[in-house]
Amino acid sequence: MRAENAIIVEPVARLIEELSKLPGIGPKTASRLTFFLLRAEEGQVQALAQALLAVKEQVRFCTRCFNITVAPLCPICQDTNRDQSKICVVEEPLDVLAIERTGAYRGLYHVLHGHIAPLEGIYREHLKIDELITRVRSEPVDEVVLAMNPNTEGEATAFLLLRDLAPLGVRVTRPARGLPTGGDLEWADPETLGSAMQGRREL
Amino acid sequence: MRAENAIIVEPVARLIEELSKLPGIGPKTASRLTFFLLRAEEGQVQALAQALLAVKEQVRFCTRCFNITVAPLCPICQDTNRDQSKICVVEEPLDVLAIERTGAYRGLYHVLHGHIAPLEGIYREHLKIDELITRVRSEPVDEVVLAMNPNTEGEATAFLLLRDLAPLGVRVTRPARGLPTGGDLEWADPETLGSAMQGRREL
Repeated sequence: MRAENAIIVEPVARLIEELSKLPGIGPKTASRLTFFLLRAEEGQVQALAQALLAVKEQVRFCTRCFNITVAPLCPICQDTNRDQSKICVVEEPLDVLAIERTGAYRGLYHVLHGHIAPLEGIYREHLKIDELITRVRSEPVDEVVLAMNPNTEGEATAFLLLRDLAPLGVRVTRPARGLPTGGDLEWADPETLGSAMQGRREL
Repeated sequence: MRAENAIIVEPVARLIEELSKLPGIGPKTASRLTFFLLRAEEGQVQALAQALLAVKEQVRFCTRCFNITVAPLCPICQDTNRDQSKICVVEEPLDVLAIERTGAYRGLYHVLHGHIAPLEGIYREHLKIDELITRVRSEPVDEVVLAMNPNTEGEATAFLLLRDLAPLGVRVTRPARGLPTGGDLEWADPETLGSAMQGRREL
């Protein structure tokens, strides 16, 4: 890369480097984006830079559920029409959006901001678990939906939460497992097909 | 998307929108990047925003070869050790980097900033072709290497340039076509294999 360092001018090299730090963006994609931005209108690049700064300045986490917000409480926690007796626990703010998009849930949320992953150094204390327990103790909650990702880390996190929630006398539920809509039974992995068969329902 | 608009706060929606304008980044990737940046350290986000602004403020195109630069002339045009008798014509500044990386060329460059594509409304006058002709007329050039992309648009552009360059009495060359190193003959497309057979060389 010696020849390259000599001929890539510093601001370009720096932008490539900063873009490469983003998840899923390697050096090649970062170069491609940089050369696109070099030729883009100045207004577009400034709008992007300002959007980045605005997000850091204005966006915070909801003091109650840790979803993203600009006010102390997020729009969902502010909405008194939501069912205050249900809390759906998710790993990330994006999961809130995914569930909202279905229109199938009208309760509140609680964002853990990750999952238990000892190998990555992510333990109980790094997640918003104590905050969830406090909410369940102090709010009129009768159901906690554990909507962690259906993978190993999600399962481990749900298991840990179940242990903490069981003594509090709330109903703890999980979204159903089964065949994805539009999927092909033939291509379902055995785990998914097994869950679907076990959870079969009368028509 | 109604429910979503209500719960995605404005600065977040705006950053997702701005990121979605980048090539190869759809709304899903833009969301993922946004939520990553929300959790990233403030310094990292500021560094990215500043790198964006710096690129637009400081980087311009070389007045001679139209490569990227911060000075009026790019580092390659400034380098008097480069062979001043050769100009390699490429479509994009990234192509300069790709050729430099090989270490197999020590002449100058000329960046066209695109290729002829009438269907996309890109004609001769949108490219730095007149500037190339002026250089060939006024500089001590004896070889012009047409290193456009080996595809239809690149071929069309090379053909057009050849017609303009022929009367000027310079040698016009193209990089060799053939089997890519590490490739498998069995999987080569007929076009590539045909070029390789036609261009076969004595051992």
